[in-house]
Amino acid sequence: MGPPPRQSAAMLTLLAPLLLAAAAAPAPPTPAEIVAAAPASAWRTVKPENIVVFESPVGRLVVELAPQFAPAHAEAVRALVRARRFDGGAIVRVQENYVVQWAARPEGGAPLVSQPPDQRGPRQRPRLPAEYERDARGLTFTPLPYKDVYAEAGFVDGFPAARDAREGKAWLAQCPGMVGAGRDMPPDTGDGSELYAVTGHAPRHLDRNTTALGRVLAGLDGWDGLKRGSGDLGFYPNDSERTAVTSAHMASEMTGFGSWQVMDTTSASFAAYVKARANRTGFFVRQAGATDLCNVQVPVRSVPTRAK
Amino acid sequence: MGPPPRQSAAMLTLLAPLLLAAAAAPAPPTPAEIVAAAPASAWRTVKPENIVVFESPVGRLVVELAPQFAPAHAEAVRALVRARRFDGGAIVRVQENYVVQWAARPEGGAPLVSQPPDQRGPRQRPRLPAEYERDARGLTFTPLPYKDVYAEAGFVDGFPAARDAREGKAWLAQCPGMVGAGRDMPPDTGDGSELYAVTGHAPRHLDRNTTALGRVLAGLDGWDGLKRGSGDLGFYPNDSERTAVTSAHMASEMTGFGSWQVMDTTSASFAAYVKARANRTGFFVRQAGATDLCNVQVPVRSVPTRAK
Repeated sequence: MGPPPRQSAAMLTLLAPLLLAAAAAPAPPTPAEIVAAAPASAWRTVKPENIVVFESPVGRLVVELAPQFAPAHAEAVRALVRARRFDGGAIVRVQENYVVQWAARPEGGAPLVSQPPDQRGPRQRPRLPAEYERDARGLTFTPLPYKDVYAEAGFVDGFPAARDAREGKAWLAQCPGMVGAGRDMPPDTGDGSELYAVTGHAPRHLDRNTTALGRVLAGLDGWDGLKRGSGDLGFYPNDSERTAVTSAHMASEMTGFGSWQVMDTTSASFAAYVKARANRTGFFVRQAGATDLCNVQVPVRSVPTRAK
Repeated sequence: MGPPPRQSAAMLTLLAPLLLAAAAAPAPPTPAEIVAAAPASAWRTVKPENIVVFESPVGRLVVELAPQFAPAHAEAVRALVRARRFDGGAIVRVQENYVVQWAARPEGGAPLVSQPPDQRGPRQRPRLPAEYERDARGLTFTPLPYKDVYAEAGFVDGFPAARDAREGKAWLAQCPGMVGAGRDMPPDTGDGSELYAVTGHAPRHLDRNTTALGRVLAGLDGWDGLKRGSGDLGFYPNDSERTAVTSAHMASEMTGFGSWQVMDTTSASFAAYVKARANRTGFFVRQAGATDLCNVQVPVRSVPTRAK
């Protein structure tokens, strides 16, 4: 009883019976059925050098970097991972309807869960440029065929995105699950050592105001299922309330990790999926006839052995 | 470091210093400053007979009912509260980026935290009509001056809402914090004994597909900070994983509860607030120039002693 489920990567393993049912049913295919029926050519395998795996007691967070939008940030995160700076990091902030945020430990510093918040030490990496938007040329932008409140919405390489044709710029849209770099007031003060994942209603007003550098492929349910921080902005006032980030690795360093695939947002399967998301059946007595960019939720799936 | 805070009721007590600062500053007022400066006439005191207070170990959830949209459901919830059916209820479902859902115990039944999920027993209240939309006449609808993906968006009595001028219908919009009635597949199978609060990105495709009957005034951060259910749709497969709803009361039954106020969405203060939400300053280097309906977040505040 209750509202129906959102699409999630975890559900995709359950869909085989639905696929069989669809063959006999005259109803238009559901989003889940379209995902299950999508051919191999409709999936893009994520490069292992773009996957970061953060480990914590509340589960593994798998993040895909987006170097085509934030090359300096992607490289900084890779460098921090390889320097083991996220081992001994912590989830420092969980703010309802906004973000989960985590930080690397200072270089040579003790694990963050054993330090008071004001002794995280100065960041020791160079500041990075504000990678808020980029030239739209060189990207394949697939427009969402519905309205957007903030810009022209669409998809690039499986990421929710937006663009301004007049300015010739494109940027990542800050939908739930998108990952960005925390910063202080000056725009160029992010250094990749403090990251946030969007939860809650998409704060699209953040678009082009922080560097979005990737998105969560899996695990945000575990991290967002933490008690919210009681301090200002959802920070934990006491170090003992933090949850450790025990380690982080690039998927390219890991053996037996398998691979992740994201639906190709230029594919016919994806176009059908978007249309079905806008016109849901089953539980729904009235079809919306449209969908917000952030309600599309580009399908992702894990593949146990690395795709050939 | 990181993205700035969303507006929250809890923050409003912190705003007096900002108000003083605003007097000296030439910058346009921020949303928080507008809220702090709003005259008493810009606030509506919520009727105590429309406030339900659910108690749990993860805090108190304060809900405002919307009988102007869902009269039968509002009355059913009041009756369940007065019959003490939510005492011994439980939070039965927490699904990431979607809903927190809780249930009353069956009439005469044991507390829900000590029963397996399949023995919640038949519901014993009569089914309620599907209160999905209503005649737009008789409502004061204040349009949002920006686009909406799904319909015409606006506000009615402090609630996010939408309307269709051609059909002459209005309905509550399922933004984060909105409360609705769970139902089975047939539209008229909700009975008010199982409620959900929206979390995550607004599932506006639910608009006019379930009965939205009110909204959370406070406490959703506590309830959504629970470990997500590992079962299908975020339900908890084991009763031991549920969190109890220990009791529920109408504010009109409680002494010393104080009162709650919601900003009058027809007021000049609210219009200024919406505009400021669409054009944020400070941390923001680029103003969005628009805001999604669900990012407006109508201000609410608690008043320790009941307003006269």
